Amino acid sequence: MNPPLIILVRPQLGENIGKAARAMLNFGLTELRLVAPRDGWPNPDAGPAASGADIVLANAQVFDSLADAVTDCTHIYATTVRKRGVSKPVLTPEAAAKAVHASAGRSAFVFGPERSGLETDDVAVAHNIITVPINPEFGSLNLAQAVILLAYEWSKGQALASPPDVPLAPPAPHEEMEELIQHFVRDLDEAGYFFPADRRASTLRTLRTTLTKTGWSHNDVRMMHGIVTMLGRKRRDRT
Amino acid sequence: MNPPLIILVRPQLGENIGKAARAMLNFGLTELRLVAPRDGWPNPDAGPAASGADIVLANAQVFDSLADAVTDCTHIYATTVRKRGVSKPVLTPEAAAKAVHASAGRSAFVFGPERSGLETDDVAVAHNIITVPINPEFGSLNLAQAVILLAYEWSKGQALASPPDVPLAPPAPHEEMEELIQHFVRDLDEAGYFFPADRRASTLRTLRTTLTKTGWSHNDVRMMHGIVTMLGRKRRDRT
Repeated sequence: MNPPLIILVRPQLGENIGKAARAMLNFGLTELRLVAPRDGWPNPDAGPAASGADIVLANAQVFDSLADAVTDCTHIYATTVRKRGVSKPVLTPEAAAKAVHASAGRSAFVFGPERSGLETDDVAVAHNIITVPINPEFGSLNLAQAVILLAYEWSKGQALASPPDVPLAPPAPHEEMEELIQHFVRDLDEAGYFFPADRRASTLRTLRTTLTKTGWSHNDVRMMHGIVTMLGRKRRDRT
Repeated sequence: MNPPLIILVRPQLGENIGKAARAMLNFGLTELRLVAPRDGWPNPDAGPAASGADIVLANAQVFDSLADAVTDCTHIYATTVRKRGVSKPVLTPEAAAKAVHASAGRSAFVFGPERSGLETDDVAVAHNIITVPINPEFGSLNLAQAVILLAYEWSKGQALASPPDVPLAPPAPHEEMEELIQHFVRDLDEAGYFFPADRRASTLRTLRTTLTKTGWSHNDVRMMHGIVTMLGRKRRDRT
């Protein structure tokens, strides 16, 4: 457990800083660093946009330069869509998240200003570039969206997963399903369903396949017994 | 290639419909269906929020009920954070995306209204539930964020990936690195670096390791030759 820092370089709108904080906390990231935010810090527009992720904003640290912001980081990832003059290995968010989990030191995901993205000099500070594979004909990922995708990928390595509280009912044992199949067959025989008689075997095989693949639980099977019985009654009443 | 539909059930704000459209198109999804949008359709707030994803909005189809919206779908996934009374298999976005790629029919990712999420009756229409694993102490995923995470996971199975246009320079062949190491060694020997002499072998091994792991390309190696040479000149000049 060694969560990455999120570093926003020269962010412009307080609203976007707040949204980034919200995206972070959704996936368990809490350490935000701001490099030269355009409108200073704190910024009154950040809080409302954070939708309750106030702790992230309250603990945000401010630095004058990216170099100052990453002094304690061993792995620095620059997120940038555009191809820059800097030649560095380009990772997907997925690969970067795995690299963060595999590394012992502190990692930082660095994001540029809203419009322009990171400058070449910022990218030069990083060890790797992260590029989100995106629709080549419509690449329009905003700051908070980029943050959430990175935070989300990182969180996959964590124990955030929220499995269903109550386990799903498992499929009924074969014996129960077999009894149900026999119930169907009995009542269908009675109703004259298997006609002509020489196709009985193949029709029955189809029915068996259909019922077997349902994955019905004990309760499902019980309910179906009731349904088959009731349908039979209805038929008898009619005749 | 069988992209899933995105279905927004009773969306409230046009702005959020626009943001969802933008999130979709970022990852190559274009088919949007709206079930009973609160403020009717079209909605003037959607366009600006779509940031250019107008084609998605223009082609959006409107339905009265979720059942009407999914008549042509074979696999219906209901996204919901909260545990409902409905027992269905719960998938992560990743597992759902893989299921969509593996299936032949049309798939739909269904999202509920902004505040309340999907009703139990909506979830009942679905084959599976998708839950985004999220910080249990701060789950605050908005509609467009949920859409983008699903679209992003789906896009991983596609050929959207944008590798660097220019391949990175590969590491230089071993021979070139070896020449560089020897250049270092020659000049360092000359400078009296390997002292005391009985530690020469181990120091040299360390140097070799350090240089080998750089992954330096042909051009990097050439540049380093120049640097080593220049440093040597500087030293000779001084002495």
